Amino acid sequence: MANFDKTAVLGAGVIGASWTALFLAAGKDVCVFDVADNVEGEVTDYVEKAWPTLLEIGLAAEGRRGALSFAATPEAAVVGADFVQENVPERLPIKLELYQRIEPHLKASAVVSSSASGLMVKEMQAGWENPARFVLGHPFNPPHLVPLVEVIGNERNDPAALLDAEAFYREVGKVTIRVNKEVPGHVANRLQAALWREAIHLVNEGVASVEDVDTAVWAGPGLRWGAMGPHMLFSLGAGAGGLAEFCNRYADSFHRWWDDLGTPQITAEVAEKLGQGVADEAKGRGVDALSTKRDALIVAHLKAVKDLR
Amino acid sequence: MANFDKTAVLGAGVIGASWTALFLAAGKDVCVFDVADNVEGEVTDYVEKAWPTLLEIGLAAEGRRGALSFAATPEAAVVGADFVQENVPERLPIKLELYQRIEPHLKASAVVSSSASGLMVKEMQAGWENPARFVLGHPFNPPHLVPLVEVIGNERNDPAALLDAEAFYREVGKVTIRVNKEVPGHVANRLQAALWREAIHLVNEGVASVEDVDTAVWAGPGLRWGAMGPHMLFSLGAGAGGLAEFCNRYADSFHRWWDDLGTPQITAEVAEKLGQGVADEAKGRGVDALSTKRDALIVAHLKAVKDLR
Repeated sequence: MANFDKTAVLGAGVIGASWTALFLAAGKDVCVFDVADNVEGEVTDYVEKAWPTLLEIGLAAEGRRGALSFAATPEAAVVGADFVQENVPERLPIKLELYQRIEPHLKASAVVSSSASGLMVKEMQAGWENPARFVLGHPFNPPHLVPLVEVIGNERNDPAALLDAEAFYREVGKVTIRVNKEVPGHVANRLQAALWREAIHLVNEGVASVEDVDTAVWAGPGLRWGAMGPHMLFSLGAGAGGLAEFCNRYADSFHRWWDDLGTPQITAEVAEKLGQGVADEAKGRGVDALSTKRDALIVAHLKAVKDLR
Repeated sequence: MANFDKTAVLGAGVIGASWTALFLAAGKDVCVFDVADNVEGEVTDYVEKAWPTLLEIGLAAEGRRGALSFAATPEAAVVGADFVQENVPERLPIKLELYQRIEPHLKASAVVSSSASGLMVKEMQAGWENPARFVLGHPFNPPHLVPLVEVIGNERNDPAALLDAEAFYREVGKVTIRVNKEVPGHVANRLQAALWREAIHLVNEGVASVEDVDTAVWAGPGLRWGAMGPHMLFSLGAGAGGLAEFCNRYADSFHRWWDDLGTPQITAEVAEKLGQGVADEAKGRGVDALSTKRDALIVAHLKAVKDLR
């Protein structure tokens, strides 16, 4: 594979700052561009705060840290970069203008990967003379903690660019999947949407409280989903017979449950009810305390399993 | 709350044996009944194998272990029991006959809780003269590892019996939720069904491989679901604005994704395709190796977070 020692991060909100920390931790040089005045302070702070965690989960190592620099323009940021992660606001005109500006300044071998979650690759390709090495690399927030990156291209890509992007992400410690066909929400957001739809339905119908539905996830199947995905788990659940046996045994149950799943909409009333339920679940704890707890749980988990994967 | 020092476990397959290990670990005496000839050997083996794990995750403690005994009949098993966990095969006539046999021999204060996943409380109540203290306590496999128990009753219950069951489960280290209204699949199986339906759809449509869909779960949202449930996670995802702000920002995206979610059926062809995908994902590893890995990941996770909950 190609060498990707020099990277650029375009757009340095929370996602861009998190990517920056991760790339630096892997020993990559990072040149950051963002329109915000205070980008240098914000990104530097973010990196410093993330660093102990990156060390703890093994993504950073003592004595390894790329050089962090800032550029006044996106054109300047990408000069000499081998890999560019783009995280500007998710509005198509902003993305397209950026691509037009940077394309003439890129190395021929550079890969440009967009963190976009809602836009389609084919829409974003409109900003390129030659979109062969422009791909989508969709992370989960925050990218330096959650391993998944969904890598997506289409027939206008050089297949090598997708392989290069995957190799780069793996090198910096990510776990990639290849999305072969663009659908709204890619893969993981659709799975989240499917789960949340039924979670909302159960609350709406009075089957269980918001807190109890949340508990049903983390204390139940969520615990297993942190280990393996649903196909493998169900296959193992049937022992030697595997998924074929699982389907034999439980297809009728699943069909019955599927027929009964809800199809709520997020109305103002539903949002209000869910918000009240989360407030009850919070039991007086604020957003900061709960976010800290969430991250502590995730970091402890990642640290505990890192040698078992 | 009442004291639940003496317990009975009726039906000692994998679920019953796992409950037995957990109750013993909490210092409860357990009297086991099962129709199988080799029940004594099987259950004793299961408990011995589970014990190091129970110690590791803090559910057992040195010097604390209830007395294990076996009864030749269910009537004998429940005599003097404060709490009875019933796990006989999930066929209604078997359950009803068992309840009729044990009811005259129960202490007035005893709670009887069924592990049934598919039968409804109201169906099972038909086996009782007085179902006031008969509840459903649905675990996830294996009960000594996965914390969740779904507790369900209805208007024919003494509300105190549900509170007693919850108190008992918490005492032995479980996390309970209250299901207020019976629906097929209770709560957690419906959530699993919702997720798996879309997971199957994405494979069917060629969006991603079985392995990549599984990876999208454990390396992505599954990692977060092992920490918190979807309502709380999305609420925290919107920062200070909470779930109301999250709904404002993302309701349109979710509605678009929901409209596009698939509704596959588990046909023979689908089962075959999923089975092949899991075989690819297994990369030559057998069921035992993968099950061991799954349990090692879950135990490491539980151990890592036990002081953070």
